[in-house]
Order: sequence, then C-alpha cells, then structure tokens
Amino acid sequence: MALLDRINAPEDLKKFSPGEMTKLAEEIRKGILKRVNTLGGHLGPDLGIVEATIALHYVFNSPTDKFVFDVSHQCYPHKMLTGRKDGFVNPAGHSEISGYFNPAESEHDTFVIGHTSTSVSLATGVAKARDLKGEKHNVIALIGDGSLSGGEAYEGLNNASVLGSNIIIIVNDNEMSIAENQGGLYKNLELLRKTHGKAELNFFKTFGFDYYYVENGNDIQTLIEAFKKVKDTDKPTVVHIHTLKGKGYAPAVENKELGHWMTAGFMDEKENSSDKFSESYESITNKYISEKQKEDKTIMLISPATPGATAFGQEFRKSLGKNYTDVGIAEEHAIAYSSALAKNGCKPVLGILSSFVQRTYDQLSQDLALNNSPAAILVYWGGISPMDMTHLGCFDIPLISNIPNIVYLAPTCKEEYIRMLDWAVNQTEYPAAIRVPFGSFRVSGKEDTTDYSILNKSELVHSGSKVAILGLGSFFELGLKLADKLKETLKIDATVINPKFISGIDKELLAGLEKNHEVVITLEDGILNGGFGEKVAGFLGKTSMKVLNYGADKEFTDRVPLDELYKRYRLVPELIVEDIRNIL
Amino acid sequence: MALLDRINAPEDLKKFSPGEMTKLAEEIRKGILKRVNTLGGHLGPDLGIVEATIALHYVFNSPTDKFVFDVSHQCYPHKMLTGRKDGFVNPAGHSEISGYFNPAESEHDTFVIGHTSTSVSLATGVAKARDLKGEKHNVIALIGDGSLSGGEAYEGLNNASVLGSNIIIIVNDNEMSIAENQGGLYKNLELLRKTHGKAELNFFKTFGFDYYYVENGNDIQTLIEAFKKVKDTDKPTVVHIHTLKGKGYAPAVENKELGHWMTAGFMDEKENSSDKFSESYESITNKYISEKQKEDKTIMLISPATPGATAFGQEFRKSLGKNYTDVGIAEEHAIAYSSALAKNGCKPVLGILSSFVQRTYDQLSQDLALNNSPAAILVYWGGISPMDMTHLGCFDIPLISNIPNIVYLAPTCKEEYIRMLDWAVNQTEYPAAIRVPFGSFRVSGKEDTTDYSILNKSELVHSGSKVAILGLGSFFELGLKLADKLKETLKIDATVINPKFISGIDKELLAGLEKNHEVVITLEDGILNGGFGEKVAGFLGKTSMKVLNYGADKEFTDRVPLDELYKRYRLVPELIVEDIRNIL
Repeated sequence: MALLDRINAPEDLKKFSPGEMTKLAEEIRKGILKRVNTLGGHLGPDLGIVEATIALHYVFNSPTDKFVFDVSHQCYPHKMLTGRKDGFVNPAGHSEISGYFNPAESEHDTFVIGHTSTSVSLATGVAKARDLKGEKHNVIALIGDGSLSGGEAYEGLNNASVLGSNIIIIVNDNEMSIAENQGGLYKNLELLRKTHGKAELNFFKTFGFDYYYVENGNDIQTLIEAFKKVKDTDKPTVVHIHTLKGKGYAPAVENKELGHWMTAGFMDEKENSSDKFSESYESITNKYISEKQKEDKTIMLISPATPGATAFGQEFRKSLGKNYTDVGIAEEHAIAYSSALAKNGCKPVLGILSSFVQRTYDQLSQDLALNNSPAAILVYWGGISPMDMTHLGCFDIPLISNIPNIVYLAPTCKEEYIRMLDWAVNQTEYPAAIRVPFGSFRVSGKEDTTDYSILNKSELVHSGSKVAILGLGSFFELGLKLADKLKETLKIDATVINPKFISGIDKELLAGLEKNHEVVITLEDGILNGGFGEKVAGFLGKTSMKVLNYGADKEFTDRVPLDELYKRYRLVPELIVEDIRNIL
Repeated sequence: MALLDRINAPEDLKKFSPGEMTKLAEEIRKGILKRVNTLGGHLGPDLGIVEATIALHYVFNSPTDKFVFDVSHQCYPHKMLTGRKDGFVNPAGHSEISGYFNPAESEHDTFVIGHTSTSVSLATGVAKARDLKGEKHNVIALIGDGSLSGGEAYEGLNNASVLGSNIIIIVNDNEMSIAENQGGLYKNLELLRKTHGKAELNFFKTFGFDYYYVENGNDIQTLIEAFKKVKDTDKPTVVHIHTLKGKGYAPAVENKELGHWMTAGFMDEKENSSDKFSESYESITNKYISEKQKEDKTIMLISPATPGATAFGQEFRKSLGKNYTDVGIAEEHAIAYSSALAKNGCKPVLGILSSFVQRTYDQLSQDLALNNSPAAILVYWGGISPMDMTHLGCFDIPLISNIPNIVYLAPTCKEEYIRMLDWAVNQTEYPAAIRVPFGSFRVSGKEDTTDYSILNKSELVHSGSKVAILGLGSFFELGLKLADKLKETLKIDATVINPKFISGIDKELLAGLEKNHEVVITLEDGILNGGFGEKVAGFLGKTSMKVLNYGADKEFTDRVPLDELYKRYRLVPELIVEDIRNIL
C-alpha cells in the first residue's frame, strides 16, 4: 500500500502525478473491500465514488473548503484521504472509524450525517455562514441521484439556487437509489446523461443553477478539469457526474441493489448462505402479502426505497406486479399515498425502518391519523440497538404512540404477529402500525384469536401478586425471565402481562392490580422518555403502587454493543430484581 | 343571492350560462368577504380561486371525480358550490362550516386537509386506488405556487408523474406564498408566465408531465376550455393557471401578504387598530433581534414562510437585510439550514409555529440534535387551543422534548423569556428551543438572572408542604391559582414550582419533595401523552408520593372553545382540588 502510506492529509495528494492517482484509486478500492469484508458496510456507493473523491480533494482544500456528503455512506475514500486509512487497510483499526461522517473523528467531516437528502440544505447554511462572516472558501455538497427524491433535498435545492454566492453541488448519478430509482425526475437525469448534459429540459437549470455535466465520472483527470472550472465560482452550481456504482467489484456492478450494502465475510463465502428459507417475521410478512394478493387486488405493498432492509426481495416484488410500489426515498409521500389508498378502499401495507419513520411525522399526524385512514404500517428494526448513532431504532414508540388515532401494536411472537398483521390489513377503522420484532423470532405454539379491534386490551399471561411485570413486544421475553428470577431469588410469584398495544394502556387491568400488587415494572425496547412506561406511571400515579420504568435513556448512542447498553439501562433480570428488592 | 340559491350541488351549476357564471362569481366573492368579516379567515387565496373553482365544478363531476385541495384554505368557493353556502351567506350558519376540507361535512371533501404541500401525494394515492379497483374517473389536485416549495409536494410530483394514468394537477400560481415566494423554482414559474407556458425550461416537464398554461386564470370560460381539454386524460398532467390573489377586494390585492388571512371585522374598522405598540412576547423578540443585529452580523432570523404569524412584520424584516431569510414553506430545510449556520459560528433564530414543528422531526433529530448545533428555535402558538383540528398547538412538547440534546425551555413571564432568549441565542453548547407563551402576557416585575446552562434546574417559587404543584410555562399561572384555591378550601400551603425546562426534570428537587409532600401535581399546556408530567410520574414512581398529571387528552379537537377543553381536561383549580381531596 505504498501510495496510500504517503497520504496523511489531503494536501499530500496534491503532489501526486496522474498515474499515481490512478494507482491510488486501486489501493482505495482494496481498502473499501477489505473493510466491508471485515465489518460489513456500504460497498457499491463507495466503490463508485473513488475517483470523484480523489479529484475533489485534489482540486479543493479541505477543511478550508467544506464538504458535505449526503447520507455520507460514500465517505470511505474520503476517510482514507483524510488521515483515517487505518479504518480500511488495517483490520485492527476498522472499528475505530465509523462508516459515516463524524466531526469527532476529523475536521474534514463537517457534520454527523446518516439520513438521506440533507446535504444541500446543510451546505446552504454553511455557505450562508461564510457570507455572513465575510469569509471566502468553497462549499461543496455531494448528493447521489437516489437521495434527490427526498423532499429535504428539493427544499435545499430551491434555497441553494438563490443563495447568490458560491455553492457547488456534485450530483453523483450512478443510476441507482438503494434499489432502482423511482419517479419522473429520473427520466430527466436519463435525458441529461444521453445528451451529455445538453438537453434544454434540465431539472437543475429550472432552479437557475449553473450546470456542468461529466460523462466519465470515474476518470480522475476529467473530473479534476471539471472541478477546477467551478472552483471559486460565485454562483450556485451543479456538477452532474455519471459514475458506476460498485465499480471494481463485478458482483456489485451486476447486482447493484445487493451490492449496496454487504455483510462481513461476503468475499470469503463460497456461496451466499441465504437464510431465505428459514422462517422469520419478514418471511411471514411476505407470504401473507403474496397469499392476500391472490384474492384481493387492492392490496398494495409500499417501500420507501428500502426493500432490501425489509426483505422485500427482488423476486417477491416482481411477483406482486402492480401491487407493489417503491416510491423512492420519499417517506412523506409514502405515508400520504398510503393514507389515500386506504381512504379509497384499498389495503396499503407500508414497510418502513424505525429510524426513517421520523422522516414523516407530519404526514403520520395530518395525512394519516387526522383522516383515520386504515393503512397498515410495519415498523422494522425498532428497538435498542448497537447501530450507528444516525440509525438508532429506539425513538419510534414516543413518535408514533403519541399521535391520536393510530393504533400501534407490539407482537411478542409469530402467532400474535400473524393475527395482528391480518387484523391491520383488513380492518377499516384505524391507522394501524405494528412494531415487527427485530432480532429474535419467538414461536409461542399457541394460536392467537384476539380481536384487536377491542383497543388497548392487554393479555394477563400469569396472575400472581406483589409484583406485576409489563413486558412490551420484543421485551416480553425479558419479562418472563424477570419473573423467573423473582421467583428464584425473592420467592415472588409475579404477575406477567403482555400489553400488546403500545398506543394505549389497559386501564381496567392496571387499576385492578392495586388490590394485591405493590410494584409495577414496565419493560420497553426503546427510549423511556415519552414512551409506554411513563404512561403507565402517569396512570398509576394516583394509586399506592410503585412503578419502575425500564428502557433506554434519552441519548444518541454510537455503535455501543447491545449487552453494554442493556447493562447501562439495567435491562437485566438480576439488576431489576435488585431495584425491586430496594423498594419493597 | 338569487344565483347561489339555485346551487345545492355541483350539478346545478352545469345549467348555468356563461353570463350567469360570471354573476355567480361575484356572489361567491361577497360570501367570502361576509364570512371572513364575521369569523376571520383566509381571504386572498379564496378571492383568487373563485373562477377556477366554478370552472372545475362545471367541467368535472364531483364527487365521482375527486378533488384534493392543498392546505384547503382556498376551499370557500368549493364549499359554496357543494351544498354549504350557509357557511358564507348566512352568519348564523358560519361556524357550522369549517374553513378547510372536511369529509364529515361533505362527500365533496376528499380528506381532512390543513397543512401544506400534501395534495399531490394524496391525489396520487386516490388515483392509484382507482386504477387498482378498475374504476374510471378524474383525480384533480389543486396546489398553490407557494405550497410547491414544500418537500412533500415534490415527492408527490416525482411519483405522480410516473403513475401512468389520469391525474390532473392544477397549479394555482398567484405569485405569492403566505408572504413572498422564495427560491429558484419561482424564477422558473416567472419564466413560464412570461412565455405563456412556452419556455423550453419547464419545471413540470422535467418530471414528464403533460403541461398546459392558462394566462387568465380568473376567466371562467378560458378555464373551462382548458379543463375540458385535459378531462379524462390518461396521462399525468399539469395545468398551470395564473390567478390574482385577493381579486375583487382592493386592499387584499395591494398587500397580498396582509390579505392572506384577515381577522373578523376587518371591513368594519375605520383603520386597522394595530396593537403593534403594545408589548408582547413577539415585540420583545423583534426588539431583541434588532438590537443584537447592531453588534453582531452573524445573527440570522429565519422564517419558514410564516413571518406574519410570528409577527416578523414587513418593516422589521426589511430592516434586518441580509440577516433575515424566509426559506419558503420548507420547514425541513429551515432546521438543517439553522443547524449549519449555528455549527459554523453564526446565531440562527428560527421562528416556527407549534403545529408546523412536526413537519421537521427528522431534521430536528438528525441535522440539529445529533450535531448539537446551538441554534435557537422559537416555538409560537404552542398550547391547548380552540383552533381547527389541523392546526392544534398541543403536540410540540412530546415531539421536541423527547429528542436527545435539545434543551426546550418554558418561560412563564416576560423577564424569563428575555433571559432565556438571550441565553439561547448566545450559548454555543445546545440546540435550544423556547416555547413562546401564547395568549396572555405576564410581567413578574422581577429580573431573571438564571444561568440556563445549568440544565433542568427548576425554580422553587414557594416552599410549602403536603401538595407540590409544577406549573409548566403558560400554565404556571394556573399553578398559582391552584395554590390559592388549595389554601382557601383545604387549608393546604402548597409548594409551587416553576419547572422552566420542558426537556428534563429537576431530579434533586423532585426527590427532595418526598419528605413533606404526599401529592405532586403537574400542569402542562399540551397533550399529556409523552409529555412533561408523565416524566415526573415516571421518576417519582419509586417514591410514596402520588402524582396527578394534568394536560390535554390524546385527541384531535376541532374548534372546541378553550373553556370547554379546560373543563374536559379538568384544568380548572376547583376540579383539581376535588381530585386532590379524593386521594389525600
């Protein structure tokens, strides 16, 4: 890795010859593959942006010039050029470096970034700050074609274009979102590619941007030339570069969707050991939708650009035909669209990740809940998690459950999930969301025949005394373990309750506990603030029972191992027993 | 009102001659003016859309054909043509009819609508439902040029354009948002108007829409011709009509911003009895910003298109020059932009209405809080209110206060507000939001010297015993009244606490209450679910004290008088005393 060794900061790159830069690109590619094969991570987006990143750092002067990368999942080459190559070439150093922008790591990362479509807005603020302070430097936003479908990107473009000073937006057009791009905009990008940017009809020019097109966005010298042309411009400018997603790793080029994000060890496996035949909440969902579609042509499965994450596989989507839509990265539209479908007699089912539900709060409230539209929303990846701070799944409970009219359900096992899914899809009274358990798959072996239209009815799983445990959704099992531990250590036969509903509490059941319980324990797989347990505490505040709420603190955690988080939040039977002992 | 009398449903309109329609337009205008003068309401948008509404109902067949109006604040003519003229011509019937779409009123209103930029997304869902069910009818979205700046509108356009079937989007271009339009898009609309739609560079065509332009959007017969041309089209189509906001009422045409929404009695007043010289939280804010700007050129006041509602008057904005930006209806951008300004050494102050904060949750979390950007956010109109169900201000507490890192403050009087504002603007550690009290203006007469960088420190206003009252922000006065009532009726000398911080509780103070208190009362001007009181209840759950939370239920209320809501939620000293008596 001779060449990369010579780069500790971007200025070192400026001494490189064209030939050296080409070789450097290959070294960077090897670094990307090495890291992703060790840790898992974004592959296609990073392989495609190698040359552009070299050219950007060659032409501009970071950190004086400011880069803002959209999502920043394509920042691996950037990190290698800004003093963090150990995160790529040296397996021991991989986990020290995150897969996203992080100012705590380096002054070359302008913001913590992980969600989509934010770069242009942020860059507009950076540029305005520069102007207010009378400084001179370039502000460069990098945004992928896929990210352009999000509303915030558009709001940013609309405002960046009238900034009246330097802002350079690099549109990295690799002809893909996470899956395929969706929407009319992409026909215009296609036209621009076909005409090498010469078509009169130009989305970016409608806003008034100066516009440049680079057909070979994987050629360093061509890119350098283009970037030199716009450097120090005093006008809002778009440079549209055409790149190849996955470049340099054939499987990621052949299947760009699968190559977007790869799990650790992908290069070592003989064949992709797919678990698609083992049962999971995801497989149950897809099977249910497929069967439903045979009898009901108004079923409509919707993904906001994350079909891979929700396991809506390519074959499955194809089999649904007109009954599947990917709306692109456009969560706001996804909810409004679902609401309208439901209100007009169809059966929309939206699959969305917990971390991205928060991109559409107003639509959940106004377009969906106010209209009481009976859409079904499946929330995936919810729960306390060891993920990056930008993709935590612990905020959806306060977000969804405090909006009127929405019924938010928490299944604890396969049987309940099937029953809830069937209810959510077929009922016509409420917006219904289900928190699909993430991680473990539990089979109770007992058919669920609950009528979920009777709202907020919890299940009394075991009737004991002194201590009552409410184990919500994926933490129901923790509740069972806690009950065992209480019996074992304090000889307490605790009551165990499966709340089932996140969006409301079973007041009758809770009030009835007072006659033979002293302590109520709530367990939830998310932040405590604004969540389920506090509602129980609020309701029981007038009783003589004590209430202990367990869940996550209000904090952004960054790649903290799950067992460490569980200890921190005392989500461990032994620790909870200790707390109970202290207040009994 | 002879002509309007003949219309009880849209089909009655179809028998009208062109001359009669022209006269009808005048009657409708009178109805608009009459209602707004009686109740207050949207004036300019409705006066401008009279002819288009007549033409739409003449050409299309509602409710078979489906109309979706953006914001729906321009629905007054539509309501008069769909059996609800009493809401306009008959003062006794005015309050029966709301100022927005409402399916509970009429089958001609397709959704409850009140927030901006939703119509295209909703209409896309309506059209897709039609296609799935094999039905045939037109789906028509009406959207103003101002609403086009919002991200959801764009996400909708991007998806509507590839629907592959009938959807007709009427762009009502009156050259205004609530205040002036902002952004590059509007230069393209200007170009299209200047060229009568013939310019090659066409925002709508970039998505692939069929496009038609109507220069005289206030001429019924021209509009009828245009709408007939696109009726039953099988392609996603945009009809861009140029209208005059406020048409028919000269003052609303002359000052389109002021004419957007008028208070009751505006036609009767000799002169506008402006209260701009009386002191208010709004006037204090503006004075502070003006003075700050003299010494610090990095201050930046930002409005997401609602400068009128936050009392950023025309003169005041002008005086700020480069230190004021209206970003258009683009709350997502507003937060990201503020975050970037703050992170780059400037002092952004964003003024936003409570009901619109929810349009930008993800940006509050990702762009702002994760980056710990020290922007100042002023939340106006927060609190339980008698407003339309689409514009309630009671959800911001759970929304903002459950996001990590954001400090959310609740001043109870002028002195605290000034101190908090000064702190929020000048500190560099936290995203800081302030809930500007709405309605009453309280002067304590006592300078506030609190250091708000010591987080979550409440003020012990009066140290009593037995009962402790936490009166949050605008409900602090209710707390004082409750204390008086407790003394008077139960002879209890209650402790009174001013929490000051919404985003965190004063654990030390609360825990210390246990030694001589039996009951803790929390009062908050918003919904209980996910709010402040439940956090107090959760924290005190392990103590022997009882906790009673007071605030609003989780429900959408629609124009319910405030005293009725207060009674419903027992937010009345007498009722709370009763509750306390029952549990002591």
